[in-house]
Amino acid sequence: MTEYELFAVELAREAARVSLPYFRNPCEESDKGGVAGFDPVTQADREAEAAIRRLIEARYPAHGVVGEEYGEDRPDAEHVWVLDPIDGTRAFIAGLPLWTNLIALRAAGRPTVGVIGQPYLDEIFIGGPSGARLLKGADETRLETRSCGQLTDAVIATTDTDLFTGPELGAWTQVRAAARLARLGCDAYAYAMLAAGRVDLVAESGLKVWDWSALVPVIEAAGGEVTDWRGGAPDGNGQILAVGDARIREQALVSLRRAAL
Amino acid sequence: MTEYELFAVELAREAARVSLPYFRNPCEESDKGGVAGFDPVTQADREAEAAIRRLIEARYPAHGVVGEEYGEDRPDAEHVWVLDPIDGTRAFIAGLPLWTNLIALRAAGRPTVGVIGQPYLDEIFIGGPSGARLLKGADETRLETRSCGQLTDAVIATTDTDLFTGPELGAWTQVRAAARLARLGCDAYAYAMLAAGRVDLVAESGLKVWDWSALVPVIEAAGGEVTDWRGGAPDGNGQILAVGDARIREQALVSLRRAAL
Repeated sequence: MTEYELFAVELAREAARVSLPYFRNPCEESDKGGVAGFDPVTQADREAEAAIRRLIEARYPAHGVVGEEYGEDRPDAEHVWVLDPIDGTRAFIAGLPLWTNLIALRAAGRPTVGVIGQPYLDEIFIGGPSGARLLKGADETRLETRSCGQLTDAVIATTDTDLFTGPELGAWTQVRAAARLARLGCDAYAYAMLAAGRVDLVAESGLKVWDWSALVPVIEAAGGEVTDWRGGAPDGNGQILAVGDARIREQALVSLRRAAL
Repeated sequence: MTEYELFAVELAREAARVSLPYFRNPCEESDKGGVAGFDPVTQADREAEAAIRRLIEARYPAHGVVGEEYGEDRPDAEHVWVLDPIDGTRAFIAGLPLWTNLIALRAAGRPTVGVIGQPYLDEIFIGGPSGARLLKGADETRLETRSCGQLTDAVIATTDTDLFTGPELGAWTQVRAAARLARLGCDAYAYAMLAAGRVDLVAESGLKVWDWSALVPVIEAAGGEVTDWRGGAPDGNGQILAVGDARIREQALVSLRRAAL
């Protein structure tokens, strides 16, 4: 692995060390959503991001950092770390081991290294210039998306259909009706399963830059693709489509494009 | 633990031994749903149930068995084992470690011992006359539901809103609107989290006897309650409401009763 890939794994292990002890244990929790609706944040989110930032600051003081909990430092630097210390805070709160630590390195505006870590499962999915792999304990497995030429054969996922607007829900419902099987409630873990060749398509909307940046290098290095709902590069509108096999992207976009921002 | 509780744990370990090697590995899969819609069953489901049945037959030949994959043997016996070898086959297929092995012992018509096992997490939730506990590796933790006096404070869960009929979906949507936080996609694992005091309410419909029987002793021994959508004992109509604190049951039933069968 490259220097940055190894450092990303080091950050994921630090995020795990800080966040896991709070899982299914007492953990302060507050609502940062206000009138816009419940948006939970916990002590584990905040402490994990602070710990990751300390390591980055010590090792690469010229790098930028963009994180969900503590905002932007040098966001225009050539190298910027993009952090969601706990993606799936709701799953974390409900005791479900599908929350993840998301860490991405953006270079020249593109995510080039990504890590999806699930500490309770002792899983780190890492993607970058050296390829995509799953680290679990002392084991290392190469990640590869699977072949799926038809949407009717696809296993698809999204986190919660309540996150869709009306047109988005219509588009999702069409895609779901065509697919073989749909799973809900996975947050970023669904993308890890796509990289591992268990899920064929994930479609979501309302994602922030820290929600999707880490997924891109993992999925691309595993052979998949991440676009927006028009088929272009994710550009910040929050609509994300990930496929393990590019052949089903066009089939899904027939529906999703109608709700594309 | 009682003799039957110990045997239920033995069955769960056997189910884990048989099913886990197929998880995220090649596993034959077929559709038993036909025109009624996709209803997957795998080699892991079939082999796990067959293995459990062999152990029961050898140890308690007079006991009955009701299983999802291989039907009924002596269903009117005084003691009947009710089995769902893999609950959440869709999660299993998608690589998500929230599928479970469900094993219940029904005595005189009531579930008295229940096990919810998740082999990838090495977790066995067991409930019965000796109480409710989580076995993980060599650790044993007592399970206790948590106090939650108001639906507005509740963490709630259901597997998939597409499983609801129109009136059921309306009822769920009302309950969800009142609750603090909702999670989807958990199958029986949501009930394990309710017994563990992380989730306050689970509402589902369309459940078969093997889907819900194992949950009852685990939740009751942890301090919670399982009813149908009228507040009575689960009677086979498939609508299940589980609460960790009985005070929120009436608040949820205000909505759910309107869609009760």
